[in-house]
Amino acid sequence: MHKQQGTVGLVLSEKNQQGKSMSTTLSEMTESTSNETADAVDPVALVTQCGKQARACAATLASADTAQKNLALLSAADAIDAATDALLQANQKDLASAKQGGISAALLDRLELTPARVASMSKGLRDIAAQADPVGALSASEKQASGLEIARMRVPLGVIGVIYESRPNVTADAAALCLKSGNAVILRGGSEARRSNAAIAACMAQGLAAAGLPEHAVQLIGTTDREAVAAMLRLEDYIDVIIPRGGKGLTSRVSQDAKVPVIKHLDGICHVYIDEGADKDQAISIAFNSKTYRYGICGAMETLLVAEAEAQAVLPELCQKLSGHGVELRGCERTQALVKDVALATEEDWATEYLAPVLSIKVVNDVNDAMAHIAKYGSGHTDAIVTSDIARSRQFVREVDSSSVMVNAATCFADGAQYGLGAEIGISTNKMHVRGPVGALGLTTEKYVVTGDGTIRH
Amino acid sequence: MHKQQGTVGLVLSEKNQQGKSMSTTLSEMTESTSNETADAVDPVALVTQCGKQARACAATLASADTAQKNLALLSAADAIDAATDALLQANQKDLASAKQGGISAALLDRLELTPARVASMSKGLRDIAAQADPVGALSASEKQASGLEIARMRVPLGVIGVIYESRPNVTADAAALCLKSGNAVILRGGSEARRSNAAIAACMAQGLAAAGLPEHAVQLIGTTDREAVAAMLRLEDYIDVIIPRGGKGLTSRVSQDAKVPVIKHLDGICHVYIDEGADKDQAISIAFNSKTYRYGICGAMETLLVAEAEAQAVLPELCQKLSGHGVELRGCERTQALVKDVALATEEDWATEYLAPVLSIKVVNDVNDAMAHIAKYGSGHTDAIVTSDIARSRQFVREVDSSSVMVNAATCFADGAQYGLGAEIGISTNKMHVRGPVGALGLTTEKYVVTGDGTIRH
Repeated sequence: MHKQQGTVGLVLSEKNQQGKSMSTTLSEMTESTSNETADAVDPVALVTQCGKQARACAATLASADTAQKNLALLSAADAIDAATDALLQANQKDLASAKQGGISAALLDRLELTPARVASMSKGLRDIAAQADPVGALSASEKQASGLEIARMRVPLGVIGVIYESRPNVTADAAALCLKSGNAVILRGGSEARRSNAAIAACMAQGLAAAGLPEHAVQLIGTTDREAVAAMLRLEDYIDVIIPRGGKGLTSRVSQDAKVPVIKHLDGICHVYIDEGADKDQAISIAFNSKTYRYGICGAMETLLVAEAEAQAVLPELCQKLSGHGVELRGCERTQALVKDVALATEEDWATEYLAPVLSIKVVNDVNDAMAHIAKYGSGHTDAIVTSDIARSRQFVREVDSSSVMVNAATCFADGAQYGLGAEIGISTNKMHVRGPVGALGLTTEKYVVTGDGTIRH
Repeated sequence: MHKQQGTVGLVLSEKNQQGKSMSTTLSEMTESTSNETADAVDPVALVTQCGKQARACAATLASADTAQKNLALLSAADAIDAATDALLQANQKDLASAKQGGISAALLDRLELTPARVASMSKGLRDIAAQADPVGALSASEKQASGLEIARMRVPLGVIGVIYESRPNVTADAAALCLKSGNAVILRGGSEARRSNAAIAACMAQGLAAAGLPEHAVQLIGTTDREAVAAMLRLEDYIDVIIPRGGKGLTSRVSQDAKVPVIKHLDGICHVYIDEGADKDQAISIAFNSKTYRYGICGAMETLLVAEAEAQAVLPELCQKLSGHGVELRGCERTQALVKDVALATEEDWATEYLAPVLSIKVVNDVNDAMAHIAKYGSGHTDAIVTSDIARSRQFVREVDSSSVMVNAATCFADGAQYGLGAEIGISTNKMHVRGPVGALGLTTEKYVVTGDGTIRH
């Protein structure tokens, strides 16, 4: 068993015990997690060891004081601010390797840390510290005929595994949300971000140490071996839930192989439906914003549905605005009859999450037709109606089975921070446990607390 | 594809359309689901067809009025009362076959319907009708800086699969809870109860018809082929959650093979800890009740933990009472020193759910020692403390990670009806989604409802 090797938390704590300064250990660490060293470690043994260590400290975290958890978050935020230069240096090395490896511009953008992005990470930690602690909340109790008082207490899930790709900020966000919700976390980031992730994890470890919380509360798996991911997915005894954070390829691989429950979304095929009688300016503004705010986010609109009654009033102007912004349009025949230079949308278009400046457009008869389309092609992520009619608004809200249903708002708002969750560890289109953006609350569950007075059952 | 064969709901509706009386079709049906007929059906095709039919009616059920769902439940209750004789006859045939097959007395008891048990089923349906409808409840909305109002609406999960063994009452309970919570349900009962289950499902179908709800809202899989269970477990597209209801063998088989999420508990290794300074009479009464109320229920105490300070005062008297009641005692050495004729408990005893008149007893140092034992050997089901000390009570409640944690109450209360849920579809020791007894609320989830006023993201 490779006991004290390969996880950043461990390496760091060992170094700390030897009294070295953080800046030294940080640079050593970001070197020591390079491929050659890490791949010498048996990934299954390493991940199992991480799992055991996480499970061993879960009870301590579950009963940690709110003040203690917040101190860890605030100290980690300070550590990130203080280590900004070191983080940027580590990130520069990741970026250099990635460029050598020839990765895409989009991936490079996700991987890059800037002073502003580092500041935004530490602000995220402070925001999460400022939020209410979900753990320990006790519901109103209901008294039963037996005399028993039945209540429910909110408690952590235990150990969370997070598997992500190139964004280094996930290291801070995920660790902070797990910590706030009293869970231990095992992080497995993409190999291209390994130096950045290690540097951020070192700051989290400083925060834990400052608050006297267990060092294994946040563990970053320090091997880039893919077998480590496979091992995490099978670690039912030590990991309570896996959250994949990344592209569809990662997510579907994870859900295919996982024995541990998975909180995830696969696709964000989001719709905006412009209802009969909708305010024209609102309709155009919401549709344009939903598509163009950012093309690559899962809450971006991919298909626009327009009630026949509004199509003529709305589509030509909206399409001109979208085309002028560089959005490629594909539409049904009724759309083509109203707007020039629109390619015919295929069956595949309705089922595609473009994540790009492409939009499919369909003229529908009415709200029922729109909802039927959403039920058939939607991914249960986020769907919006633009309407002035209260009955159809209520109908849409009740009957559309998506994790977020919106009225007169842009789908690009589908985001934990925008929902007041401080940050999100992901967005769930699961039906079980939690749907929509997942913050600290979504990482907890409830247990029953039953109180009697010597009560026995007759 | 064997379209209209093998599911009771279908057979029944077809017969109804031909205008035959229920009593005729009932008797035909209970004959036609005998092994020979059923096994001619391709089980995978049959289950897939059931899944598609369930999914197709899920949206209708999700938006069904509370009054309509309650009418279905009350009509089904009336149908059960009216069909009592037919149910008992169908059950007699099941019992006769089961006796021929040589099944155990315990299984026969579970299989048997009596007039009282039939009455209790219809009462259960009326109780569930009388409960609040969880579906459609909208949380308080929180306004964000963007102007968005964020709320959560409670919605059904969609399609529930229930796999159970010999108790026919599960057919009524599970169907009723799924219906109340707006879910379609696919039921797969044990082959030994097939005639009883078909007769009960026919009554549920009458209730659905009376309320104008879709006939496929409740489907009983009419084949006893084991491959049907395997097919259900893989039906991710059509079943949202599987609930196994039965012994450990069934449950572990289901969780091993399921691709669909599973709500379950494997073991009920429940503990009662008698704390230092506990009221002696309460301690004896709660421990005795927790063990002897019914040996075979998952909430029965399997291990008694006694603080050293109370062992001498409590154990001799309690053990005499338990032995006098026919309970076999196995204890640690400190227990043996205080009580005669106690066998030495082995490591295996601490980890065993006896479900029988056997109890393991351990003298522990204090509450921390007790909680360490529970963390090591418990199954996260139900654990109780008997104490007069408020600090240790709070500590036990916060730190014991079980689906139900009890204070001064007997573990045998762990039951949906006792918790005010009306009935239960099972007890969950999962960490995800729902823990403890699962009623209608546990069969729902929440989606976000986001309301703006033409709100776009900047």
